[in-house]
Amino acid sequence: MSGQTTYADWIAVDWGTSNLRAWAMRGSTPVADAGSGKGMGSLNPDQFEPALLDLIDPWLGTGRTPVIACGMVGARQGWIEAPYAKVPCPPVGASSVKPEVKDPRIDVTILPGLSQTTPADVMRGEETQIAGFLGMTPEFDGILCLPGTHTKWVQVSAGEVVSFRTYMTGELFALISIQSVLRHSMDDAFDQDAFMAAVRDGMADPQALAGRFFALRAEGLVAETQPGMARARLSGFLIGAELAAAKPYWLGQRVALLGAGKLSDLYAKALAAEGVLPEIADVTEATLAGLTAAYETLKDAP
Amino acid sequence: MSGQTTYADWIAVDWGTSNLRAWAMRGSTPVADAGSGKGMGSLNPDQFEPALLDLIDPWLGTGRTPVIACGMVGARQGWIEAPYAKVPCPPVGASSVKPEVKDPRIDVTILPGLSQTTPADVMRGEETQIAGFLGMTPEFDGILCLPGTHTKWVQVSAGEVVSFRTYMTGELFALISIQSVLRHSMDDAFDQDAFMAAVRDGMADPQALAGRFFALRAEGLVAETQPGMARARLSGFLIGAELAAAKPYWLGQRVALLGAGKLSDLYAKALAAEGVLPEIADVTEATLAGLTAAYETLKDAP
Repeated sequence: MSGQTTYADWIAVDWGTSNLRAWAMRGSTPVADAGSGKGMGSLNPDQFEPALLDLIDPWLGTGRTPVIACGMVGARQGWIEAPYAKVPCPPVGASSVKPEVKDPRIDVTILPGLSQTTPADVMRGEETQIAGFLGMTPEFDGILCLPGTHTKWVQVSAGEVVSFRTYMTGELFALISIQSVLRHSMDDAFDQDAFMAAVRDGMADPQALAGRFFALRAEGLVAETQPGMARARLSGFLIGAELAAAKPYWLGQRVALLGAGKLSDLYAKALAAEGVLPEIADVTEATLAGLTAAYETLKDAP
Repeated sequence: MSGQTTYADWIAVDWGTSNLRAWAMRGSTPVADAGSGKGMGSLNPDQFEPALLDLIDPWLGTGRTPVIACGMVGARQGWIEAPYAKVPCPPVGASSVKPEVKDPRIDVTILPGLSQTTPADVMRGEETQIAGFLGMTPEFDGILCLPGTHTKWVQVSAGEVVSFRTYMTGELFALISIQSVLRHSMDDAFDQDAFMAAVRDGMADPQALAGRFFALRAEGLVAETQPGMARARLSGFLIGAELAAAKPYWLGQRVALLGAGKLSDLYAKALAAEGVLPEIADVTEATLAGLTAAYETLKDAP
């Protein structure tokens, strides 16, 4: 114990299916942060408040601290349902909801996600990142790509989300590489050239995807595959097939990647091979900017 | 205990990754059968003989009983490796291998699988079913489809396997429906019309596959999806994409489905919509016919 106390004007929370992350905020500046694995997927409704307090208790003062949360915490199976706003609409600004809390020191607000009727699609959490990105890049008109377990391609115009589409590429990669028969062919290496070749193959002939997976296993049995080839090629085939399907989103458009780390780098490389040079923005920064904007709006509301 | 004893001339064994099945044979006729979950995937090399004896002990007499086995038991991670025969070649007939056994009452032979260099592919077990099918339908020249966890499409001509291709459709369906976020949208029902519509969609636009999965989840959230729709549509999209990729195999060809049960029925319906009316053959019958032919050949060998 350092004896030092960090008070927060308000608390920003990104609460997904698998993880919970919170920041103690002074204005728009994070002064402390904390995280846990208590994602929405592992909690019953009455376990949300204790899971939150476990993280933020040290930041609470004697008054009532506003807590602004985005993500799957607002799903039907979450703490309390925050009904979707339907696109086209601004990414954030629709009615938020407030779960009942026992602790008088917190006042929790959960931001709603976005839904689309045709084709059916939903997002929770990404809308706040999009709002934050647009706050930092107000003139942006184009396509946002948010790589992840469920990668989103989002058409943004005049400050509104016009349409979007979700690809389960990240989840498929995890399932196939960790749980399918292909796991026997995977090692920790990742060959970048093999990745790029597979992206090209995946884009050129996406309908062959279904037949490519088992070949990755068979190549390891009938030929001597180099380490790092199978993982890179699986990733490349999946991202290539996604880019082929999402082509109407990115072709000839201004594209920004909202993400960080290796996965965003892979999307950037794959897009660059198609002549698209995406801007890259930091997703944590965007999340905090979006939550801050929501906090400012809610604070000024009557 | 019935007190009744079943002696076998020889014993037929189909030993896959997840299951072990054995038949006591008199000539080409099964007179008893037994099975267990002791598949190759769960056994170390020294556990194969005890797992086999657990099942077949009651069928062993005082002499030495031949045991003919096909399947993943001959994989590198199996009991003993039975190296692949390379296509084009007859489905069965290449050198088999004999693991060392401790029990003097058994003489075990493991049949090899088939491999293909380009595109890389392998099979273990299906080659014996193909041999059995060809024994029962000796004039067959065309395409065999063996639906399963790893569905095989096999070009057969003049008694040889010319080429083949494996699609992980069954494994993908299991992973996505049981382990992905789509599991929340699945129920036990299966709408046949929704399946057929999804097969058509999957075939017409296979490159859209990557974007269809999450839509199945989203439809359940933004619209009221009927029970049985999501499971049937997932199956239809995957089988439709497989049929699109495998089209060079079945288009304008004589096609036989070697399988049984609901999965083969789905493939038959999907193919029928494309004007292909496959013959359907029983896979257990084919397995036993293939093992019997191998037993007869080995018995007569010098």
